[in-house]
Amino acid sequence: MTAAPYDLLDRVRRQKPVVHHITNWVSIYDCAQVVKSIGGSPVMAHAREEVADMVQIASAVVLNIGTLTEGLVESMKIASAAARKRGLPVLLDVCGAGATSFRNQKSFELLDSGTISIIKGNVSEIARVSGASARTKGVDAGEVEGDLAHLAEKLARERAVTVVVTGQVDLVTDGGTTWRVANGHSMMTHVVGTGCMAASVIGAFAAVEPALPLAAASALACYGVAAELAAETSAGPATFKARLLDALYALDAGTLARRQKISVV
Amino acid sequence: MTAAPYDLLDRVRRQKPVVHHITNWVSIYDCAQVVKSIGGSPVMAHAREEVADMVQIASAVVLNIGTLTEGLVESMKIASAAARKRGLPVLLDVCGAGATSFRNQKSFELLDSGTISIIKGNVSEIARVSGASARTKGVDAGEVEGDLAHLAEKLARERAVTVVVTGQVDLVTDGGTTWRVANGHSMMTHVVGTGCMAASVIGAFAAVEPALPLAAASALACYGVAAELAAETSAGPATFKARLLDALYALDAGTLARRQKISVV
Amino acid sequence: MTAAPYDLLDRVRRQKPVVHHITNWVSIYDCAQVVKSIGGSPVMAHAREEVADMVQIASAVVLNIGTLTEGLVESMKIASAAARKRGLPVLLDVCGAGATSFRNQKSFELLDSGTISIIKGNVSEIARVSGASARTKGVDAGEVEGDLAHLAEKLARERAVTVVVTGQVDLVTDGGTTWRVANGHSMMTHVVGTGCMAASVIGAFAAVEPALPLAAASALACYGVAAELAAETSAGPATFKARLLDALYALDAGTLARRQKISVV
Repeated sequence: MTAAPYDLLDRVRRQKPVVHHITNWVSIYDCAQVVKSIGGSPVMAHAREEVADMVQIASAVVLNIGTLTEGLVESMKIASAAARKRGLPVLLDVCGAGATSFRNQKSFELLDSGTISIIKGNVSEIARVSGASARTKGVDAGEVEGDLAHLAEKLARERAVTVVVTGQVDLVTDGGTTWRVANGHSMMTHVVGTGCMAASVIGAFAAVEPALPLAAASALACYGVAAELAAETSAGPATFKARLLDALYALDAGTLARRQKISVV
Repeated sequence: MTAAPYDLLDRVRRQKPVVHHITNWVSIYDCAQVVKSIGGSPVMAHAREEVADMVQIASAVVLNIGTLTEGLVESMKIASAAARKRGLPVLLDVCGAGATSFRNQKSFELLDSGTISIIKGNVSEIARVSGASARTKGVDAGEVEGDLAHLAEKLARERAVTVVVTGQVDLVTDGGTTWRVANGHSMMTHVVGTGCMAASVIGAFAAVEPALPLAAASALACYGVAAELAAETSAGPATFKARLLDALYALDAGTLARRQKISVV
Repeated sequence: MTAAPYDLLDRVRRQKPVVHHITNWVSIYDCAQVVKSIGGSPVMAHAREEVADMVQIASAVVLNIGTLTEGLVESMKIASAAARKRGLPVLLDVCGAGATSFRNQKSFELLDSGTISIIKGNVSEIARVSGASARTKGVDAGEVEGDLAHLAEKLARERAVTVVVTGQVDLVTDGGTTWRVANGHSMMTHVVGTGCMAASVIGAFAAVEPALPLAAASALACYGVAAELAAETSAGPATFKARLLDALYALDAGTLARRQKISVV
């Protein structure tokens, strides 16, 4: 990797890229706020009549199937096709994949459209869209057999995308090289929407950096370091989330350089 | 009651039950977070194509008509029928009942489906679905004539459900015995969604305890004690809500035993 | 202006007006909470079957096109027509106007219905619905050529409405007189939904004061002073938002009188 995480964060702060989301109704506020906290310009819009237009002023698109409907996925397809035409990165968060057959089917429809550039999920979600056996308990990670890095790399090659697997250690792969990001804090598992917010930060970084694995790993390092800082003074999950959003806003180069743990697998 | 509130909280923390919500767009995040804060596993999903599937991995279902639409109520009917078939508890929060005739009609349609096991509302909402006269001013409680406990007991017997009436003192009844829970804090009335969150906590407790009045009273005691703790250090409603979610996460057996105020009416 | 901002805030606290919102899914919670924090009674309801009924118990209506759909705008038209019939103030937040042609078209349809009494937006949004040239970058303010006050006054006269332009200094005009409100804090630009919340506060004040420019300017002064107080002890955007909601709850007459900066342009 040739750029440090802070360089990319700094680019987001200076360029203030518009990150267009079609996301779920649970964490929609936090997805917008996390982009705002790092200096980006979030837009949330899902009407089929306007999503293609909205993509014209965006620099990245983030899709999340957390509370999907038939109509919402239709809008996602329109937006991602428009983004593809402009060469914009499109991230798909396969939130809850494996929980229902509807969710699986829609995940595959979106992946098969050939417009996705980054797939992001936890272990069981990524296993599910890889076709590997895995059990999903709601949107929390289950257990997966086999070598996770191998699974992610295979998916990345088959779909010609960047794959991001979040967990205690995050993995990022383009199918050839795989990076691990060992930042973050266990308190994140007690907060609703931390996975969704991670996707939004990756989307913002992908808006300013064409090397998508670099963008994703840098985003996860920033996000994870901010989480570590937030955990130091938090009494519980709600205070932690507020301080995470504050810490991202205030994150500086020195702290990030000292604490970031990106390495090649 | 044979189990202490902490025993049930501890069961939620150990079993991490999936609590499936079809709820409103206002407090959807807080409903999910409150379940997460007590150690449960929230799922929010409302597409008619997947709600029955989602119920298969859930241990309880929570419905809330706060921002209902025709389509959303359709999904609620599908989910609650699937839950009934599996013997799962289904809680209906009749949020805003009495405010419009559409809301009343849909409340009665859901109640008449015979799939609801717990009805939860404030005084005016419960009065309304009981057929008693009451005036609703938005979603805040109005005043009701007559004996509230009597009203709740009658509703519980007629519908063969557990009825929960939230207020300064909460009431829980199965139609035979009625319990009062005298925990909580007046700051809750200044925070949007405290009623919705109470329903989610009850849902999580009902997922681990088949005696639904016991589950409901224990849930309300935990929630109310956490609110009392949160109020001690809060400057206003937003800080209070964050500390309430933190306090639930940290709640211990000793504090709960000392402060819980459950008694038979 | 004949009443001080505190007089109106005090009226809201005593009358607890119901403020009916049809708003976006991003800031819907915060719009409700900000009304609750100042002592009002928020209602969020959007089903076409019930919005006209909900208007009957409301004292003001707030519309926001942030995440509009065809169906949502249909409900807005029904609600605002019912409100007009009752003589209630209807505020339209033209959130994101200029970003897409769908958004522009729907803004004009709502304005042309003749039911709107207050139009609220940032500089680029107000320019767009005025027909002036402006560029919108998502929902953040762009730059506009020409005299902003002149533009707002012209729009106010043409549409026979009160116009509110939010920015570093807020402008309020009825087309004849224009007021500036110089309260607020730059941290507001780092928080998602501060514009939407401003609209909700204005809606609550308009519910208790028929002179709409007075209501709007007073609301913005209260909101801006609370933001100044919140910024004094905030480490970042999330803490700031919580403290803003707390500060509105606690705002007293003396502080407001000392700090409010309303003047005629």
